Amino acid sequence: MSSTWGKNVNVSIFGESHGQAIGVTINGLPAGFALDMAELQRYMAKRKPGGNLATPRSEDDLPVILSGVFNGKTTGAPLTAVIYNKNTKSGDYENISHCARPGHADYTAYVKYNGANDYRGGGHFSGRLTACIVFAGAVCSQILKSQGIEIFAHISSISDVNDTPFEMVVCDEIKSKLDCDFPVINDLAGQQMKERVKNALEQSDSVGGTVECMATGLPAGIGSPMFDGVENKIASIMFGIPAVKGIEFGAGFESAKMFGSQNNDEFYIDGDVAKTKTNNCGGVLGGITNGMPVTFKVAFKPTPSIAQKQQTIDFKTDQNTTIEVKGRHDPCVVMRATPVVTAATAIAILDLLYEI
Amino acid sequence: MSSTWGKNVNVSIFGESHGQAIGVTINGLPAGFALDMAELQRYMAKRKPGGNLATPRSEDDLPVILSGVFNGKTTGAPLTAVIYNKNTKSGDYENISHCARPGHADYTAYVKYNGANDYRGGGHFSGRLTACIVFAGAVCSQILKSQGIEIFAHISSISDVNDTPFEMVVCDEIKSKLDCDFPVINDLAGQQMKERVKNALEQSDSVGGTVECMATGLPAGIGSPMFDGVENKIASIMFGIPAVKGIEFGAGFESAKMFGSQNNDEFYIDGDVAKTKTNNCGGVLGGITNGMPVTFKVAFKPTPSIAQKQQTIDFKTDQNTTIEVKGRHDPCVVMRATPVVTAATAIAILDLLYEI
Amino acid sequence: MSSTWGKNVNVSIFGESHGQAIGVTINGLPAGFALDMAELQRYMAKRKPGGNLATPRSEDDLPVILSGVFNGKTTGAPLTAVIYNKNTKSGDYENISHCARPGHADYTAYVKYNGANDYRGGGHFSGRLTACIVFAGAVCSQILKSQGIEIFAHISSISDVNDTPFEMVVCDEIKSKLDCDFPVINDLAGQQMKERVKNALEQSDSVGGTVECMATGLPAGIGSPMFDGVENKIASIMFGIPAVKGIEFGAGFESAKMFGSQNNDEFYIDGDVAKTKTNNCGGVLGGITNGMPVTFKVAFKPTPSIAQKQQTIDFKTDQNTTIEVKGRHDPCVVMRATPVVTAATAIAILDLLYEI
Amino acid sequence: MSSTWGKNVNVSIFGESHGQAIGVTINGLPAGFALDMAELQRYMAKRKPGGNLATPRSEDDLPVILSGVFNGKTTGAPLTAVIYNKNTKSGDYENISHCARPGHADYTAYVKYNGANDYRGGGHFSGRLTACIVFAGAVCSQILKSQGIEIFAHISSISDVNDTPFEMVVCDEIKSKLDCDFPVINDLAGQQMKERVKNALEQSDSVGGTVECMATGLPAGIGSPMFDGVENKIASIMFGIPAVKGIEFGAGFESAKMFGSQNNDEFYIDGDVAKTKTNNCGGVLGGITNGMPVTFKVAFKPTPSIAQKQQTIDFKTDQNTTIEVKGRHDPCVVMRATPVVTAATAIAILDLLYEI
Repeated sequence: MSSTWGKNVNVSIFGESHGQAIGVTINGLPAGFALDMAELQRYMAKRKPGGNLATPRSEDDLPVILSGVFNGKTTGAPLTAVIYNKNTKSGDYENISHCARPGHADYTAYVKYNGANDYRGGGHFSGRLTACIVFAGAVCSQILKSQGIEIFAHISSISDVNDTPFEMVVCDEIKSKLDCDFPVINDLAGQQMKERVKNALEQSDSVGGTVECMATGLPAGIGSPMFDGVENKIASIMFGIPAVKGIEFGAGFESAKMFGSQNNDEFYIDGDVAKTKTNNCGGVLGGITNGMPVTFKVAFKPTPSIAQKQQTIDFKTDQNTTIEVKGRHDPCVVMRATPVVTAATAIAILDLLYEI
Repeated sequence: MSSTWGKNVNVSIFGESHGQAIGVTINGLPAGFALDMAELQRYMAKRKPGGNLATPRSEDDLPVILSGVFNGKTTGAPLTAVIYNKNTKSGDYENISHCARPGHADYTAYVKYNGANDYRGGGHFSGRLTACIVFAGAVCSQILKSQGIEIFAHISSISDVNDTPFEMVVCDEIKSKLDCDFPVINDLAGQQMKERVKNALEQSDSVGGTVECMATGLPAGIGSPMFDGVENKIASIMFGIPAVKGIEFGAGFESAKMFGSQNNDEFYIDGDVAKTKTNNCGGVLGGITNGMPVTFKVAFKPTPSIAQKQQTIDFKTDQNTTIEVKGRHDPCVVMRATPVVTAATAIAILDLLYEI
Repeated sequence: MSSTWGKNVNVSIFGESHGQAIGVTINGLPAGFALDMAELQRYMAKRKPGGNLATPRSEDDLPVILSGVFNGKTTGAPLTAVIYNKNTKSGDYENISHCARPGHADYTAYVKYNGANDYRGGGHFSGRLTACIVFAGAVCSQILKSQGIEIFAHISSISDVNDTPFEMVVCDEIKSKLDCDFPVINDLAGQQMKERVKNALEQSDSVGGTVECMATGLPAGIGSPMFDGVENKIASIMFGIPAVKGIEFGAGFESAKMFGSQNNDEFYIDGDVAKTKTNNCGGVLGGITNGMPVTFKVAFKPTPSIAQKQQTIDFKTDQNTTIEVKGRHDPCVVMRATPVVTAATAIAILDLLYEI
Repeated sequence: MSSTWGKNVNVSIFGESHGQAIGVTINGLPAGFALDMAELQRYMAKRKPGGNLATPRSEDDLPVILSGVFNGKTTGAPLTAVIYNKNTKSGDYENISHCARPGHADYTAYVKYNGANDYRGGGHFSGRLTACIVFAGAVCSQILKSQGIEIFAHISSISDVNDTPFEMVVCDEIKSKLDCDFPVINDLAGQQMKERVKNALEQSDSVGGTVECMATGLPAGIGSPMFDGVENKIASIMFGIPAVKGIEFGAGFESAKMFGSQNNDEFYIDGDVAKTKTNNCGGVLGGITNGMPVTFKVAFKPTPSIAQKQQTIDFKTDQNTTIEVKGRHDPCVVMRATPVVTAATAIAILDLLYEI
């Protein structure tokens, strides 16, 4: 099994990078929810190559809804959308049918599937599949928003450049700043990040980074102890995004260096609402939301596809060899990954909300 | 739902800290496996208060196997073990029935369960429940070991003191060093860590830390793309351990600062085995093992129970108040958490191995 | 995997007939529900050997609640109850460790578990395990009843004797008739059934029968199309009861002989409630309740343990042989199976109710 | 949740009768299996209106494989196929948006989905969706056949006419008889069945019937006790087929009338293979196969769509009214349901086979 996630809201993702189509089926959506299709496309556009530019996009990459929507509203039956693959140049991939690109799943997929996997463009392992997560998450986001729950994310770091972290409230100014294809809070940091990416590209290299995500408006009491908690669920979907290598909630790894007296978030009553003065726990205690924003950070490794010669193996002949990964690749996945993180979060939170 | 984990190997954990018993049912174990009960108890002893001392322990805390074992071998039917709770002083907990200990789940559990949760000693949220994970993981470890798969862990850091990280091979000397109740590779670091813990205790405070874990002997090809990969599974069970706030595989958050040319692990053939020169990916590419050790690090927050006065709320009256958490608490959970991490890893890996 | 059932309400059953204990963990129960323990025992008593007699029972067979109940109310954490096995005479079972009792799982368990299964008394396959279903179902029944949902069952047939079927309403007179250990609507039929059982016993034989079950008070709109419908769920749990060989909803197999004009249940408005004039569909259309009682019938094969000489095999030597099943066995399981059917139904319906 | 089934092999079905498309995603298929596309279409053709005629079919109704197949072989990634809906006349369905057709899910779907369901042609509840089960089952059948497992079915009864039941071996003559769109063993019975259908049609009525199914070649030891047994799994998928109202394994309801001495299947050794003289248990003991053919019978109610005036309700106005169901409908679903039964069985058995 591989590509389905969720208990109450379930997404089942299919497709290969150079096959006929990629797509997703969502089970468990409420019936009668009016989808805002324009907003859906805006959300998806942020993940697209080149970002959310003003120029009109080719319609090719738009999802086609096959089921689950009637008269503009969800029917309650499974909602399936597909994105047809076009203009794929599959000839370029003959070498990766037997040579492992370092950092990619070519070798591991070969072993798991006895060589039957569709290796073209990474097949089912391709980052292209994240478009399906974004579609599903965009749908879930609209439902969450109608209940007062919003999810924000920014590029927290690229290479050695860090953005300003979220505070406990996302003001309107920051909201508008994040609504773009290179979302940062600190513009100067954003400039430096872009330089890091540009420099990496010029050196036929790539860079990694982190995304910070925050969900606001969640009531206290969502989640479960032990294995179905907020952190388990979010972590388990987040590692479904290619290149993710780590996740931390609240102060995360930093809290491992703290004293208890520093790390504990003291409670207080604000009006009739329980709040905490700090949010080192990331809004989650014992797997359950405490009413503060749920916050976490996700680490992305640098794009493995680089135009440098690398040592590797031919796994069909078991010989050492070298490889140069050709073609045009993003020198950093973090920008395009940001909407994938918010989308995956939306799916996880809707699933959590629907748990009795 | 809350307290079950796993698809092929499933653990279902029950119990409350001051109830009659805690316990675990394991479904999906192979039939006919001869359990080494002495080894099982040795494994469990590492998690116990005070560590694996030479003095004989009271039998009270030993698991009683109720089902699933016949003539010393697993029957293939569900294996259930319980640990009866004894000598619990429940009177001490009246205050947490309405006052939230900062960093604990008192408030979130109250909200989720409308006040019906067993709050005594943290109830189902208590760290005591990890004894059940350790039992189940100890069983799974024996099965894995019979297939050449071993799992090691050490205290990677406490407060600001770091241990030497794992290398790609765990030599016999290190293996023997890790087989104790304060497993570190660097003895000096170990001494400093103990001082940090002692100092924290003296100041009525606590400290956090990290555990590094490594699984060796896993063949390439285990795991799945997207949502059922090695990382998803391990992360999802790991956040079931109280106080865990982050997880990273391989270079993890560090790889987010790297260039692709640094982070990519180049392949080579060693004899007829594919290996990588470095292991920044933590043995996992595309959710699937590449045959190198699976490595990851887990962040634990400092013990929330500290003997200092803290500001908090009475959630029954919605008033601000203060609390001092009394009783004897570990000033650092990391030592006792180490066997919990290896145990949870064993469960996750056995589940992954049994996936077709 | 084997012995867990349910998505929203999950029961996980463990134990072997002659092991230390049998038991069940229930996940997903609502918190704060006050259990009526006397009613729980009354429910369980109906399944016991000899029926619900007035004589005081030995306490041996009473379930011990280990977790999930605090101050008489459910805590929301997993509820586990165990029944300790006592006075088991395991010596009698040596022969079935290698000889297959016809109609029993001795041979199939041997093959599946490579001979490691606990064969004593049927091990995990024993009808004794149904006590766990009854316990879990008794808990679920109380919750359902608090919401106006009740489940009734009677012995619909034994051998060639049929009881009067349920009508669409269960009047108080019938309710009181069913509240015993031999529940029938028609007393004369009940007498004849008892004779059939007695005769079978005298001839060292056994008889089968059917149980008719009806759940009232379910609102319309519960269930799902395709695979998670009312019928799928109830059927899937019902075949977890040993000796069940068939299930039919509403008119069931009889409707296969009908014309559409006979079988279709015409709707009408009664006050402001939609009803149907007949209930051939058993209260379910498209997997979803229509507001009428959910009705179904379950077929039980005759007890396979009979005191006659039967031809069989020794599966360790692959030789033909004969067997006589000794010991005291119920010549008909249907009486004691009736509360198991209602209990399993209660679990399934609570699970369905909690589906969003 | 609704429309996914299976643990090891998982099918997720989507689509509505008059939406853009229906389709299915299959997770868990082995990689590298060469699909016989011609055989796949032959299998699917049996379910089509009019049966498997010699005349060329319009390509409209053929499934389009979007993913999971590369160079004619399964890739191991999710296999998705869609069938696009064409020439749908949706105008005819306005009345069922508020009037309940007796025997259909119009009312129950309206209640469950608060009126947002796509009611046209029954929407997601339409029998058309069974084409997706047939596609998935046709794929699974090929995999099973490569392992020596075959699944046969015939029309066991229509109205009051019964076909000859299966014996324990399906000879070549019968195999060839069953490979058509009206599979019966006894030709005379087949003729009479066709008359019953014709007569029903002439009287603006419909008839029900039963399908008997048999799976051969399954080794002993497949399945599990309690809730994941062969019977639980097959029953749970079978009630996913619209109009199914009952299922019985082996002698089923008949065994409820038998003595144990009649019903027990005595074992014997045939060469070195354990067999039973009779197969009243339908090849399953304790949820696990015993090596004999797995046999069961499924009851289908008469087609609810009949051209007679029926009393019903307008569920938007809560008024009594009448309805005449117009359009061309099969007066009996059993013929077209036969390949659906074998397909669903193939899915269930492959899932069972892959259970460790």
